[in-house]
Amino acid sequence: MKKYGFGVDIGGTTCKLGLFSVEGELLEKWEIPTVTENGGADILEHVAAAIEGKMAQRAIPPERVLGIGLDTPGVIEQNGVVKQAANLGWRDYPAEQVLAGRTGMKVCICNDANAAALGEFWKGGGMGYSDMVMVTLGTGVGGAVILDGRIRSGVHGIAGEIGHITIHPEETVPCGCGKHGCLEQYASATGLVRVARKLIQKQEAQTTLKDTPELSAKQVLAAAKQGDAVGLKALEILGKALGFSLAAVSQVIDPEVFVIGGGVSKAGEILLAAVKKYYIPEVLPAGRATEFALAVLGNDAGMYGCMKLLLDKTE
Amino acid sequence: MKKYGFGVDIGGTTCKLGLFSVEGELLEKWEIPTVTENGGADILEHVAAAIEGKMAQRAIPPERVLGIGLDTPGVIEQNGVVKQAANLGWRDYPAEQVLAGRTGMKVCICNDANAAALGEFWKGGGMGYSDMVMVTLGTGVGGAVILDGRIRSGVHGIAGEIGHITIHPEETVPCGCGKHGCLEQYASATGLVRVARKLIQKQEAQTTLKDTPELSAKQVLAAAKQGDAVGLKALEILGKALGFSLAAVSQVIDPEVFVIGGGVSKAGEILLAAVKKYYIPEVLPAGRATEFALAVLGNDAGMYGCMKLLLDKTE
Repeated sequence: MKKYGFGVDIGGTTCKLGLFSVEGELLEKWEIPTVTENGGADILEHVAAAIEGKMAQRAIPPERVLGIGLDTPGVIEQNGVVKQAANLGWRDYPAEQVLAGRTGMKVCICNDANAAALGEFWKGGGMGYSDMVMVTLGTGVGGAVILDGRIRSGVHGIAGEIGHITIHPEETVPCGCGKHGCLEQYASATGLVRVARKLIQKQEAQTTLKDTPELSAKQVLAAAKQGDAVGLKALEILGKALGFSLAAVSQVIDPEVFVIGGGVSKAGEILLAAVKKYYIPEVLPAGRATEFALAVLGNDAGMYGCMKLLLDKTE
Repeated sequence: MKKYGFGVDIGGTTCKLGLFSVEGELLEKWEIPTVTENGGADILEHVAAAIEGKMAQRAIPPERVLGIGLDTPGVIEQNGVVKQAANLGWRDYPAEQVLAGRTGMKVCICNDANAAALGEFWKGGGMGYSDMVMVTLGTGVGGAVILDGRIRSGVHGIAGEIGHITIHPEETVPCGCGKHGCLEQYASATGLVRVARKLIQKQEAQTTLKDTPELSAKQVLAAAKQGDAVGLKALEILGKALGFSLAAVSQVIDPEVFVIGGGVSKAGEILLAAVKKYYIPEVLPAGRATEFALAVLGNDAGMYGCMKLLLDKTE
């Protein structure tokens, strides 16, 4: 009988590995470095060796292992081929097939943003819901849509890309995507710092923040919590942009819950309050009942999501 | 063996009835007036009598009839109760149960906007696709989302309500919903006339249009087709509002096709061109491949959708 599974979250710097029971308990987690030399050709060899090492160490025979759930950055095609993952050096790389061939195990692959959402859905902030939209406020703004417990990546792979909903078409600074005024420009960690810098330069309000090269989203949010005028204003701009965007999302697919993750979400309730302040009046009345939750799994979300993907694809 | 089914589209003025083969062919269609007196208590009696009359006329025995698909305006709950349909006088009215009880047939009910979308999906502009978003540019702007061939009405019933996505938060005129700057205020037939009136009043450009109480969307669109500056500008404003909104929709659920219906869609290619002009640069590149189609079933869409609903619920 199958008793175990592995969830592997491959990032540009480290691979996070988790050994799970098939009931979904994380039994052990560890990390190995992601070696991106040679176009990332050795990454999966290292993952395979780490998994085999763990199995040997715990005396787990292969017949007890369901398989490996894997996530990577970038666009992944239906057939398990990573179309492009610049951080890893992969391009049209059949990762699912390579790891399955190397280990002799069942391998399922998905995009890292979708894996994190699936993890939060399964064991985190979205637990107990069936329709969830995840928003990740990190370096950029990522998103993922889960309906009836299934990730919807869309016909062209752009479902859940709410970071690039246009909020301020009149914005003069371009977004990383080339458009102007995307949500990401105001609601990501980078966006929050950018907005705070502009406010500091304007010198309209007293602030403890300084426009140093080291100014971080964490500092801006900490200042907001202490009542700093610039910190609060930057948070307000973030809340407005995200509140408007999520109202639009509700009027497209109307989920049960929004789960907010990523570094910026560490601000907690003050962040949710800033978003809801604009979401509530912007959404049609029936949508006001949609719940807001914070992500809880942090960096483990991807591993959990990989394990869930493996379980879903096994049923 | 079941050979026939009825699709019944109940509107505020008339009920449109269709006799279909189970293969989906519309064999005959006719209308009866919607009698809204007595809080609409007689509407379903008239529908039942019309169906029985047709069966008698064509000598169709009840055992050959699959049932009745029914749509009505308003919000419909999962249990077949019409929560509120102001045009019909219904409130918390168990329409599905009433008609099933009266006729002894299987009855399935859904909202009219969803039925029209399902009809276009099955036999109209969305035929052959699996993920479609329908936009109806009529008195208001309606919408519906179909994923994997299924209507998604959302957890609180507001999925597809893209007419109330905020486009211009700075708008001073309120929308019918109470918010300001909703898509509906620029892209509905009413919105198009409103925008044209404002442009006429400004007298910035020569125009053949006059600000009469009778000014209609049809006139504005006809003027646009003839190169009238005000007509073209109003169409441009509509295209921009809808193009931006649909780019947001793609970045939430990324459908294969947008089907545009309602009175305004009779403008045809000139309308699609105006929308795509703004959609293409606004959406992430992968979303540029999403197709645009015009609705083709007109007022028959609801009947078709009702028959499809009946078939779906029978399988």
